[in-house]
Amino acid sequence: MLLTPKSELDQRIHRLQQLLAQEGIDGMIIVQNADLFYFAGTIQRSHLFIPAEGKPLLFVKRSYERAKEESALSEIIPLDNPKDLPAMLAAHGFTYINTLGFELDVLPTSQFFRYQKLFSGIRLVDGSSLIRTVRAIKSEYEIGLMKRAGEQSRGAFDYVSQCLRAGISEVELASQVEAFYRSQGHPGHVRTRGFNMDIGYGQLSSGTSLAIPSFFEGPIGGTGLSPLLSMGSGTKIIERDETVFVDYVGIREGYMVDATRVFCMGKLPDHLVRAHEVSIEIQHLLKTEGRPGVTGGELYEKAVAVAKKHGLSDHFMGYADQVSFVGHGIGIELDEWPVIAKGVKTPLEAGMVFAMEPKFVFPEGAVGLEDTFVVRPEGLEAITEYEEGIIYLP
Amino acid sequence: MLLTPKSELDQRIHRLQQLLAQEGIDGMIIVQNADLFYFAGTIQRSHLFIPAEGKPLLFVKRSYERAKEESALSEIIPLDNPKDLPAMLAAHGFTYINTLGFELDVLPTSQFFRYQKLFSGIRLVDGSSLIRTVRAIKSEYEIGLMKRAGEQSRGAFDYVSQCLRAGISEVELASQVEAFYRSQGHPGHVRTRGFNMDIGYGQLSSGTSLAIPSFFEGPIGGTGLSPLLSMGSGTKIIERDETVFVDYVGIREGYMVDATRVFCMGKLPDHLVRAHEVSIEIQHLLKTEGRPGVTGGELYEKAVAVAKKHGLSDHFMGYADQVSFVGHGIGIELDEWPVIAKGVKTPLEAGMVFAMEPKFVFPEGAVGLEDTFVVRPEGLEAITEYEEGIIYLP
Repeated sequence: MLLTPKSELDQRIHRLQQLLAQEGIDGMIIVQNADLFYFAGTIQRSHLFIPAEGKPLLFVKRSYERAKEESALSEIIPLDNPKDLPAMLAAHGFTYINTLGFELDVLPTSQFFRYQKLFSGIRLVDGSSLIRTVRAIKSEYEIGLMKRAGEQSRGAFDYVSQCLRAGISEVELASQVEAFYRSQGHPGHVRTRGFNMDIGYGQLSSGTSLAIPSFFEGPIGGTGLSPLLSMGSGTKIIERDETVFVDYVGIREGYMVDATRVFCMGKLPDHLVRAHEVSIEIQHLLKTEGRPGVTGGELYEKAVAVAKKHGLSDHFMGYADQVSFVGHGIGIELDEWPVIAKGVKTPLEAGMVFAMEPKFVFPEGAVGLEDTFVVRPEGLEAITEYEEGIIYLP
Repeated sequence: MLLTPKSELDQRIHRLQQLLAQEGIDGMIIVQNADLFYFAGTIQRSHLFIPAEGKPLLFVKRSYERAKEESALSEIIPLDNPKDLPAMLAAHGFTYINTLGFELDVLPTSQFFRYQKLFSGIRLVDGSSLIRTVRAIKSEYEIGLMKRAGEQSRGAFDYVSQCLRAGISEVELASQVEAFYRSQGHPGHVRTRGFNMDIGYGQLSSGTSLAIPSFFEGPIGGTGLSPLLSMGSGTKIIERDETVFVDYVGIREGYMVDATRVFCMGKLPDHLVRAHEVSIEIQHLLKTEGRPGVTGGELYEKAVAVAKKHGLSDHFMGYADQVSFVGHGIGIELDEWPVIAKGVKTPLEAGMVFAMEPKFVFPEGAVGLEDTFVVRPEGLEAITEYEEGIIYLP
């Protein structure tokens, strides 16, 4: 099993410590699984304390032995009862804490109240934006893992071409393609940070199902199998001459990529074919324009302008229920920073990784594509690559 | 697609209203997907207001059209900006609200702060235990759906016998069995309520992997594929003469059951065979003893006593990192109420559904079984059923 190297953890912690110092926060207590993995290399049930200055302390409830195997941190301490945290911090010399950061974007409120009682007299603040800022910039180690996830996605698209046949149901095809991902090292679980952002492996739907909107913050809906997960594959039978939309997340060693391709057995109406060409035009334009310093908002507006030029504004990124983004950061969660969306003023930086998904939705189907890119000093580099056109099958 | 009947929603809402009135809470605002589905029949992005008295109001941001199709509630109102909530409640006659309940066990803290600002002057309290209390008692409609999920689990156990062969890796077998569940209507996503309770379809591991503890609150660990989801199937090759542990969640129409069976190609050491017999003894005893009025704590102690009688205390519900429960409520989330655990004083009631999983873990493997039961006035009725012994394959 691949363990996160110490040099990676050190460098991530160092970047967070710089931000903590800048913001006048004395330290952070990190408890969410993805953040624990990122900064400690393990999700064993823990409290990770990262001081603005000094060595981080990993307090582990369960499993201590496994945390020691998985984490390259030097200070790993068994801690059965979180109530002992303040005393433990003091015992390790952290007696001066006035302001303590928590992941308030994901921490359940009742748990926050318990920490508030525990750290009475200390100001508890939201440090989640600092964590998300650090996590947005990927190292070469991380980009390397994402490229391996990209290979998984390529293999899956090849596999779709093998499995797709007229008369198969969406969910039957989904079960086969998801099994391919799983057999190639996918954990069977896609991490999202946003509250209620429930998802399985992704989105595989066809024809008219694609225009059915969903709770999920994305351009494509899908019927799903039940109102309890009302998105993605349903029982609809896939026919010839309609779009089959495969939008899945490849994952290797915890690192994800997002990629979408459209398949069709037979032929499609001209307006869908043309809209797909516009998607490719937008993708190529954004790939050319994306570089350090450009904002997510600027990229989004460029995409919108191309859609408008082609008279496709009403179909861009949804139909009836449109979303106002065209890309999203990705790494160990599906909804990382940066967001390529309306009004976003944060400039891109080298090392940021995001998926761009210019898509068009019509009542009879959806077209478009999605690939994952890393920002390099000179522009965007593709992490996922595959034939960009509609993939026609006999 | 199966939609929740109006009579179901009405009866659930009525029960919550009784508890709200008892606790002096004027109403609740519900936003989490599972709770929205339970009380409104839809997870379209919404705020569901349930007053202690009067008609519930479903305020929908996205998709309003789909919420209207999915929900049998009569008052469904489009609401783009949550900031308008207080005015909307007042406009519907709810001007007297002094105390408002929220799902504080799952609501992210930063979101809670926004509601606190929005509803200034109103006391915001945690209503999650009321919701969990209502949800713990299942209707015949719900039990019927769980029985269908039970059929899915039975089919999956049959399927394991077809796929299992010496030399297959855990994750390869998992990919095949999970594809079976998926093709039978599983959404590919298992809902948990607890923070950080990340899981895929469940737990399929073998031999020595089974004793490796994990972050997940359960007796069995497993290596997983990465420290970012360090549980369940890994790359270990499954051999003859070792235990293969299949602990998966069947799901139909959003409703789950949990069931575990142990498979073996060849034969097992005597102490594992005997421990499995003790698991069955415990399961039969608990099935006989479980009835309305008995507490989860009492059932747990009975299980512990049998393990002790057989000298197996050190292996019961984990090895090295033992957990102190033997069963958990289940329905639309994997970790519902009641909990059959140490010290739990809440008495069982008719209609409660829980999975019971007496398991024994040894360095070389694990044995035991798990089935899902509903509490009937006269005792426990099994919702999942399958051959209880170790399933030996040639």
